[in-house]
Formats: sequence, structure tokens, C-alpha cells
Amino acid sequence: MRKGEQTRAAIVEAALELAGRDGLEGLTIGLVADRMRMSKSGVFAHFGSREDLQIAVLKEYEKRFVEDVLLPSLNEGRGLPRLEAMYGRWIDRISVEISSGCIYVSGAAEYDDRPGPIRDELVGMIRSWQAELVRAIKQAIEVGHLRADTDPAQLVFVLQGFVLSVHFNTRLMHNKDSVTRARAGFSQLIGVYRAPAQSPIRLAPRNRNL
Amino acid sequence: MRKGEQTRAAIVEAALELAGRDGLEGLTIGLVADRMRMSKSGVFAHFGSREDLQIAVLKEYEKRFVEDVLLPSLNEGRGLPRLEAMYGRWIDRISVEISSGCIYVSGAAEYDDRPGPIRDELVGMIRSWQAELVRAIKQAIEVGHLRADTDPAQLVFVLQGFVLSVHFNTRLMHNKDSVTRARAGFSQLIGVYRAPAQSPIRLAPRNRNL
Repeated sequence: MRKGEQTRAAIVEAALELAGRDGLEGLTIGLVADRMRMSKSGVFAHFGSREDLQIAVLKEYEKRFVEDVLLPSLNEGRGLPRLEAMYGRWIDRISVEISSGCIYVSGAAEYDDRPGPIRDELVGMIRSWQAELVRAIKQAIEVGHLRADTDPAQLVFVLQGFVLSVHFNTRLMHNKDSVTRARAGFSQLIGVYRAPAQSPIRLAPRNRNL
Repeated sequence: MRKGEQTRAAIVEAALELAGRDGLEGLTIGLVADRMRMSKSGVFAHFGSREDLQIAVLKEYEKRFVEDVLLPSLNEGRGLPRLEAMYGRWIDRISVEISSGCIYVSGAAEYDDRPGPIRDELVGMIRSWQAELVRAIKQAIEVGHLRADTDPAQLVFVLQGFVLSVHFNTRLMHNKDSVTRARAGFSQLIGVYRAPAQSPIRLAPRNRNL
């Protein structure tokens, strides 16, 4: 990485941390410059505006989300194992972010009634993630792990609710057991949609390594 | 109501509307004075500080929530009918507030990491509501509508998630079907916990008007 790219990456890193604490709207070029011990014009040399910096922070956040949550889950077999991995890693990530604040959740409150490029970026990212969940659920139906009448969008609505409830109950209400409840909720929900026990022949592909 | 009380109530009304739009943190004595066509000192005569006004807004919000959601539901019979009414009216209220913003949800994002009297007030209110839900669920177990092994706190965690997911998916994601999904989620969830079909004798009290 060239020197300029390194500095840019370090600025985004500092801004990401500040945005976790104060929200994306709390982010200013001045605060980031202070944190970096740079001049404001030094930061402006890398980002033309505060909005450019906010969008760079969102893109970096999404990049890490994809790396930490989505990509490792794709190593799991299609169907329930992959869906479980995606949800499990999502919850893991939320539990880590409880102290720093989750940008997807805090961003929702900041931008839900504020149209513009940042809101569009945020919505686009969440839509991508919801689409990945829908894809994993459809695969779980195809391979016979979930019932054929499973409504993927309904399942995503409920999973999103579990994640929001963890955030709300932990950060605001200081309930200690939310992560456990979110995992229990998933098992229960999957129990509702799980396809009836299959014949050994249908099960065979899952046991191919035995 | 005396003149002073009328003015105070009108100020709270205006402040409640502003807080729905801009959040409780967006509320200032100046904005409220503008809206009321009063002087700032006129508003200060009724509320010693901005914080006093914010707390008065929260108390008024809770009063209306209790009047609109809780009290009418208590007319329903103990057990599932009452729980269904509480949840149904909660969702009704959220759908109305989608455009103006729900103070409980936006307040969560504003105050989750900001200790102080406003946060304490907000948490106290939500805790009361969650306790009412737990009470209704316990009654539904007692009267035999829900299974004896139902965990009331788990159920409340999931219901809270449905409400947060409606808010998130409607306000941020502009999904149109969230309210329908929240109602479908409730039916499905209750299906999981519903006690096995009872003997006609146990069912009799529910059919007493037939």
C-alpha cells in the first residue's frame, strides 16, 4: 500500500471508531483530525467532504461485516448449516459491538427520516445482507431442510427483530441474557419451519464425509 | 383545569409533537416557545429546565400509551385474548407512529449510552410495559391457554423484536408489509406455545356467551 493509501486507511479506521461511539452524524472532520493528530486540511486532502468520509466509513463497516459474517459462513454446506452460521456470526458480531454501538442499528435511527446519499448507502448495504439471508433460506428449502411453504422474507423479518431486540434490551435495558434469548429464538423459529424428518436417502448428502 | 394547567398541557402537547419529529434530544425550550408563540421565559415559567420538559414529554407519552394500549386490553378476558389485544394495540400504535416516529424506539438510540434522569425515566416506562406483558403471559399459562413451560421473558424478547423490526423495516427500509409480518409472527409464535387442545370442560369458560 502506498503512503497515501495507508494514511487514508488510518483515517477511516479512526473515523469508524468514532462513528461507533458517537454515531455517523457525530462524525466531523475536526474530530477525526484531532484523533489522527493531523490538520483538518490534511484530512480534507483524502476526503473532499464530511459526507465522503461518512460514506467511506459505511463502506469499510460493510467490508468487515462481509469478511467476518458472510464469507466464513459460505464455507458451511448449503441449507441450514450455512443459515445457522450466518445468523450465529451476526449475533456474535452484535455482542461484540454492544459496547461500541452497531452502525447499522444506530444509523437506522439517525437516517430513517433523512434522505440523501448516506441513507441510500446504508439502505443498500442492509438490503444486500437481507438478500444474502433470503438466498440462504431459499437454498435450505431447496435442499429439503426447511419446509417448502417457508416464506423467506418473513423469516428475515423475524431474524432482524431478534438482532434489534438484542441491541435494545442490552444497550438500553441492560438485560444480560439477550444474546442467549436470540439464539433460543432462532432454534425455536427453525423448529417451526424445519421440514419433517427425511428418509435416510435424502439425508445422505449431508453425511457424505462420514 | 386552571389557566396555568391548560398552558402547561398545551406546551407538553407541542413538545410531544416536536419530540416525535426530532427526537427528545432535538427538543429545546426555544423550539417549543416558537411553536407556542410564547417567549422562552414564558415556557421556563412552567418548566424549570429543558430536562424537566423532556421528562414531562415522556410521562405524557407513557400516559397515552397506557390509555390507548394497556387499559382497553384489560377489558378482554385473562389469557390469550388479553395478550392478543395488548400486542395488537401495540402494533396499531406503532403503525400510526411510523410517520411521526416512536419516542420509545428513537429514545432508545438517543439514550442507550447517555446516563441520567431521562434515560432512567425511559427505561422505567419500558420496564413497566414489559412487566405488563409478562403478567398477561403468566395469566395465559395459568388459565391453560399457553403451555406450562412457556418462558414469559423469552416471549417478551421476541415480541419486542417484532415491534423493533416493524419500525426498522418500515422507516428505514421502506418495506410496506412489516405490520402484516408482525401480526403473522405473533400467530406463529403463539402456535409454538399454545397448550394442546383442551377438553370441552376446560374450554367452557371461553364460550360462556354462546
